[in-house]
Amino acid sequence: METTVKGLFRTTEKYIGKEITLFGWVRNNRAQKEFGFINFHDGTFFDSVQVVYEDSKLKNFKDVQKIRVGSSILVKGELILTPDAKQPIEVKATYIELLGDSPEDYPIQPKRHSREFLREVAHLRMRTNLFHAVFRLRSVAAFAVHEFFQSQGFIYTHTPIITGNDGEGAGQMFNVTTLPLDKVPMNEDQQVDYKKDFFGKRTNLTVTGQLEAEAFALAFKNVYTFGPTFRAENSNTTRHASEFWMIEPEMAFADLNKNMDVAEDMVKFIIKYVFEKLPEEMVFFDKFVEPGLTDRLLKVLTQPFVKITHKEAIDILIKSNTKFENLPKHGQDINTEHEKYLTEKHFDCPVFITDWPKGIKAFYMRMNDDNETVAAMDLLVPGSGELIGGSQREERYDMLMKRMEEMDIPKEDLKWYTDLRRYGGCVHAGYGLGFERLIMYLSGVENIRDVIPFPRTPKNCEF
Amino acid sequence: METTVKGLFRTTEKYIGKEITLFGWVRNNRAQKEFGFINFHDGTFFDSVQVVYEDSKLKNFKDVQKIRVGSSILVKGELILTPDAKQPIEVKATYIELLGDSPEDYPIQPKRHSREFLREVAHLRMRTNLFHAVFRLRSVAAFAVHEFFQSQGFIYTHTPIITGNDGEGAGQMFNVTTLPLDKVPMNEDQQVDYKKDFFGKRTNLTVTGQLEAEAFALAFKNVYTFGPTFRAENSNTTRHASEFWMIEPEMAFADLNKNMDVAEDMVKFIIKYVFEKLPEEMVFFDKFVEPGLTDRLLKVLTQPFVKITHKEAIDILIKSNTKFENLPKHGQDINTEHEKYLTEKHFDCPVFITDWPKGIKAFYMRMNDDNETVAAMDLLVPGSGELIGGSQREERYDMLMKRMEEMDIPKEDLKWYTDLRRYGGCVHAGYGLGFERLIMYLSGVENIRDVIPFPRTPKNCEF
Repeated sequence: METTVKGLFRTTEKYIGKEITLFGWVRNNRAQKEFGFINFHDGTFFDSVQVVYEDSKLKNFKDVQKIRVGSSILVKGELILTPDAKQPIEVKATYIELLGDSPEDYPIQPKRHSREFLREVAHLRMRTNLFHAVFRLRSVAAFAVHEFFQSQGFIYTHTPIITGNDGEGAGQMFNVTTLPLDKVPMNEDQQVDYKKDFFGKRTNLTVTGQLEAEAFALAFKNVYTFGPTFRAENSNTTRHASEFWMIEPEMAFADLNKNMDVAEDMVKFIIKYVFEKLPEEMVFFDKFVEPGLTDRLLKVLTQPFVKITHKEAIDILIKSNTKFENLPKHGQDINTEHEKYLTEKHFDCPVFITDWPKGIKAFYMRMNDDNETVAAMDLLVPGSGELIGGSQREERYDMLMKRMEEMDIPKEDLKWYTDLRRYGGCVHAGYGLGFERLIMYLSGVENIRDVIPFPRTPKNCEF
Repeated sequence: METTVKGLFRTTEKYIGKEITLFGWVRNNRAQKEFGFINFHDGTFFDSVQVVYEDSKLKNFKDVQKIRVGSSILVKGELILTPDAKQPIEVKATYIELLGDSPEDYPIQPKRHSREFLREVAHLRMRTNLFHAVFRLRSVAAFAVHEFFQSQGFIYTHTPIITGNDGEGAGQMFNVTTLPLDKVPMNEDQQVDYKKDFFGKRTNLTVTGQLEAEAFALAFKNVYTFGPTFRAENSNTTRHASEFWMIEPEMAFADLNKNMDVAEDMVKFIIKYVFEKLPEEMVFFDKFVEPGLTDRLLKVLTQPFVKITHKEAIDILIKSNTKFENLPKHGQDINTEHEKYLTEKHFDCPVFITDWPKGIKAFYMRMNDDNETVAAMDLLVPGSGELIGGSQREERYDMLMKRMEEMDIPKEDLKWYTDLRRYGGCVHAGYGLGFERLIMYLSGVENIRDVIPFPRTPKNCEF
């Protein structure tokens, strides 16, 4: 019967004493004089299974000995229990057929490759243990996100990717156009004639789905987005990509506390979920990527997250007697070194920082009564820093208009957005979770380029 | 206790005899002299619940009478069973508070609005029954897709949105750029100097994630994408949008038959799923959007889909004695009228058409032995025409290179793709499902603009 490596490991009993058929790839082939071993991987499971072949059992023994790393093969044989060996099962082959050869220059050999090299062969790197684990984690964590929100009645909303809104206020944007770049049409005022462009106006790639998600929250109460977002910033760091996926829940009749509760529940749900579904991968990350990862993540489940205001955070930093490169200051942003101190040294736990200075936050965040801070919250986590950023939204029409004026946000373009405050508006809140940041947090992988299938960064758009 | 309209309808017993608190919106407010009725909707459920208020019970009775359609309110009261009424429950209010007003000019009044008008207020239209049902269906169907593939071990893969591949071969592309359009830099040859662009090369919005998904299938066996794709075609039809979501499974060691089996299982799974999760919405679609929809969809579950070759399909059309506007011809495409005849008149059932003429299909489809047709399959469904398009992929390196030459596909750009055939390549197959087409099929809604939250079409990029 045709089966998979996952089937063999997870439901072993089903296959005992039966002829089994497997399709997959050779991770390694160690040929001896009268027998040989193939590390056989079929993509369905983190581990390979060992396939043993013997001269006396295979008609084409000599050809099988020559099968190279990376080749695709068909294996027929019998499942053998090996309770005393490193792995509890192996396959004794009666038939092995080469389906697709792999030449000597195959880049993924059974040895250590640098992550930089593997980025250059991103179309093949998921055939290594590390990237196989990372991209399965990515898939399972994505589903965990959906499961978390769907089970609570949140509506998944596909907010637009191409947007005519210039002022989403979250970063620099890519222009989307069908105008011929070698002869861009100009209008009478010698400006680009966007009327001739595909949409009849200037359009960009979205930096956030939040504004549209707010419209949906005011009809469905609880909604979430999960889609790609874009930043045209020319920043080459290990934590920024030009294209990344974001999850943005938005909730009507929810204040900042409710917002934090949902975020905390979500993070805990996802951690539990990936340990339950991917035990092999999580052990691998702990062993080979970030020693101590399992403890760090499981500890998160045992206690409530800390909640402090931005002012309290700065006070802690000032009193810490630590030599920071950037002095912590009231009214100023919190740097990576500050995040590290708070989450790793001071609290050793995820920390919500609330009530941020209005000057460093977006126009749509709700003004607090002090008129100096807004009802924003960032979630900082040990090892990864900022994971989530959110806020209660300004639901008061006049206050919102005032902030837009102060911050020079084009009001006409966003009339539909401000109108949400005129037509049955209500207290509402939401947050954004960068999905790649989450995967880095869950795996210990430190470079965002290594958790995206085909990363896009400045001057890099391969595959 | 705080609850939701969904809670009241689905777990009624829990709330009997308790004081309940609800947050939501007024769909209608019919004030009488000494009492009144509010159609109360909170976004969690398709139906509204009726809230009854009486002069003698409310301190602010007169203010409540003035609450307008669209306003957000807080209701406290008691759940009353009304087994003889149209709805089995209602809420008797003890307290009603206006949270967010809605002025007289609120566009969504309790009357029939044209779909054209509602497109102009797309930020509010999900507050109507139709769009509330459509966008909840969209969310639930999206989750059904994930559940179907995840439960079978498929890996969800985020293929890139911005691509440097010019030749994906599925349609016209949008250019993505940060070059200043009013002074595009030129190189010495008087051509656009893309080296100065953000990615150092010309980049576009993807038309398909298939090519990258193939790379993942050759590492994980079974994978799927679910993300936005783009077409810069200037076509204004009810079935085309410039931005839409696609699901693209890709399977290693799978031929065209396996491909069709998975597609059929998926369609049946989704239909079952939405009837189970959304009984109220599906009744609504049947009653107000497409009479007979329920029968049409449930019938699909009762029988295997038909499988015929393109040649057989043309033969049936020719023999049908039907006056088609476009004469059916061997070697030619199948038009909408032909699709309708096959699925609605001849078979009255979903139909796979296989083995298409090579001249009208993409370069990556596997050549059949006749050297005239390729191992492609389209799934046509009654009422909606083409729902799925897929193929077995050309896994033979030489054949693939030959087709790319014949069809003028740039080989250098796609070296990584053709290399997948050199490194352990194997028989593999996949398909694409347009998610909006699926929602149209499931709801009976006829215009693609009415199943996308904020549709993008030529000259239209609002919100």
